[in-house]
This record gives sequence, structure tokens and C-alpha cells, in this order.
Amino acid sequence: MLSARQETILEIIQHNSPITGQHIASRLHVTRAALRSDLAILTMLGLVDARPKVGYFFTGRQAREFPLNAMAEMTVASCLSQPVVVGTDTSAYDAVIALFTEDAGTVFVGDNNILAGVVSRKDLLKTAMGGNDLRTLPVRMVMTPVSKIIYITAAEKVLAAAQRLLAYEIDCLPVVQRIHDEADTDKKELKIIGRISKTNITRIFAECVSGRRI
Amino acid sequence: MLSARQETILEIIQHNSPITGQHIASRLHVTRAALRSDLAILTMLGLVDARPKVGYFFTGRQAREFPLNAMAEMTVASCLSQPVVVGTDTSAYDAVIALFTEDAGTVFVGDNNILAGVVSRKDLLKTAMGGNDLRTLPVRMVMTPVSKIIYITAAEKVLAAAQRLLAYEIDCLPVVQRIHDEADTDKKELKIIGRISKTNITRIFAECVSGRRI
Repeated sequence: MLSARQETILEIIQHNSPITGQHIASRLHVTRAALRSDLAILTMLGLVDARPKVGYFFTGRQAREFPLNAMAEMTVASCLSQPVVVGTDTSAYDAVIALFTEDAGTVFVGDNNILAGVVSRKDLLKTAMGGNDLRTLPVRMVMTPVSKIIYITAAEKVLAAAQRLLAYEIDCLPVVQRIHDEADTDKKELKIIGRISKTNITRIFAECVSGRRI
Repeated sequence: MLSARQETILEIIQHNSPITGQHIASRLHVTRAALRSDLAILTMLGLVDARPKVGYFFTGRQAREFPLNAMAEMTVASCLSQPVVVGTDTSAYDAVIALFTEDAGTVFVGDNNILAGVVSRKDLLKTAMGGNDLRTLPVRMVMTPVSKIIYITAAEKVLAAAQRLLAYEIDCLPVVQRIHDEADTDKKELKIIGRISKTNITRIFAECVSGRRI
């Protein structure tokens, strides 16, 4: 079964091909990012087709059973979530607040979206238990520094993300883009562009398995 | 690709059919529970067959592509993890210790494995932030009480577990068995028999998708 939103998107594409993701998003009053996983599902089910710089087409094809190899081909780009980022001067206390406000399990630390560290509920709970005053403690004293962070790029497969989350026993990976400094080629920075967590993988599992018959 | 352990298990079954899960576990020096998901994968790939009270057989069949409808049929029983349970008289501090010791995201509260509550990293972090002394605070003051707990039974599908985790925005479900009190038929108790989390779902996703060709 397609979700109600997937049905609506399919209908919009059917009557307006070609149409850009941005136009579909404005019709539904949501952001482009919010549609990403629905569009990925519809494309992989063979119901719609996407052409770069043109938009989405209705294929007229019947839905076929969702193939497992389509799951294997899904990229991180198709299902990443918006990252929660706090600056390096933030207190551990304000990092907890950001975590609760966004209901995220993990907060990234960085200025201008350049990754400096990652801090999880577990790190913050451990720190709070240690009797520290979180209001005066900078988050950079608690975070895992960038040199030790496990990350992923948007072009990698969701399967690689799942395997990395399991291998390193973490809940969330920063999705990054490697940036090379032209003045100093040895210096590499990681720009934060999203996050992918066990929640995203659980959602893909549920959508692919339940959406297999339409 | 099968994992090295799945290959080993397959070889053991091939040369010793029928063999019980318990016997396979002793040969590998692991617990029966540790083999559950590998055996489920091998069974669903059609490589082995299981008969109740007899054991596992080698089918001699060639592996076929892992079918998505086999994923849809997987039950919670085939992939649940051992629960982490603390007694109702435990302090919030000792609940945190149990959580870190077992590296779990959620701890169940109950006596004699009868579910009384659930407490998560998030609950404990919130409590620690509130300036409470966790050493003197009983965990039952922090937990979500059983009347409000979302749970699942072992016979339900993994898909239902994934959908429930997403719908209620939680990381982990207690897997329970409903127990009826013969003296008081209105009284229902939930016996804790395991847990299923987004980690389990992520593992199934990774195993099914990567294990599709052998």
C-alpha cells in the first residue's frame, strides 16, 4: 500500500508531468526535503521517473513488487534528515535543550556547518551523572572530536550507513561533504549536510516492506 | 553474501541434519539467542528448513534472491534481543548503571519479569538535568508506567514493530506475553520476554539487503 501522501504525489505527477520536486513540494505546502523519501519510493517502484534538470514523469507502468535490489541501491541522499547543529561555544546544557527541542538522539557541533564534534544522549547523561554543572561546561569538552567521528557521504548507499551504525554501535551518522582547502591541500574539512540514523533505516524498512503491493 | 557465521552454521547443518538450535549453539560456543537471527535468515533464504521439536535440515536448495515478502513475514520472535530488567525498588542511579553496563537505550522495570515500567536514556537525562539526586530517587518515579507502555508480542511481525516504533517515536519495545490471572480474570499482566529496537530493525535491513546474493 502507498501512503496517502505517496498517492497524492503520484496523482500530482500523473496530471502535471514533467514537474520538479520543488513544485510538488509547494503544492503540498511542505519542504522539498520532506518529500525526498516518498519520491525515492515512487521512483524505485517504477511508478515515476526522474530526469535531471527536468523533473518527475508519470511512467504509466503498473507498480511491480518492490525489488530487494532497489533497496540495495538506495543512497543516503534519498533519505537523510535535517541535522541538529550547535556552535562550538554552546554549553552542554544548551546542547541538551537542542536535543530535546528537536527530539533528536544526537547533536552535531560545528561553526558554519563545519563538523567539529558529535554529542549523544549517552555522552550527556554520562556527564550529568558525573556531577558536572552543564551550564558552565562547554559542549566541546563532552563531544566526540571530529578526528574520531564515524561519518558517511550522501552518495554512499543506505546499506553502508546501516552497516556502519551497527559496526560502531552508534545511533546516528553525520552526512558530510569533504571540503578541500585550496590554500592548504592537507587540510580537509567536513561540511555537515544531514544526518542518517537507525530511525531513518527503520522507516525505509517499514515503507519498503509495507509498500510492496499497491 | 552470507556472513562467515552464517556459512559456518550452514555447514554444521549440512553435515548434521537434523540438528537442534541448541546443538548448533554449543558447537559455536554461543547462546541459542545469539543464533536466532542467523537461523531466521538461512530459513527464509530457503537454505535450511526447521521442524518443531526435531531441528534444522539442510534443504539442498540453491539460494534464491531474498524475497521481500519473506521480510514481511518475519516475526518478532525470530529477532528479539534479551531484555535489560531492573526491580521496582532500584534507584534511578542504578538504572543508569544497568543501561551503561548493557549498552542499552532502554531499561525495563519489573519484579519477577512482570512489566511495571520502561525508562529510557531520555527520561534519565531529563531527570538528571532537573537537579534530582538519582541515588535516592526510585526508578519508578521516573519510568513510564505500564498503563502507558507501547509493547509488542513475539508472534507479531517485525513490520508491526517497525511501524509502532515510528508511530510512537520510541527506540525500543518490550516484547511481552499476556498472562491472565485465573483468580481474577480482569487482571492482566505482561511478562517480559525480550526487547526489539531500531537496532534490531537496522540489523535485519543490513542482513537481508546484503545477504541477497550468495
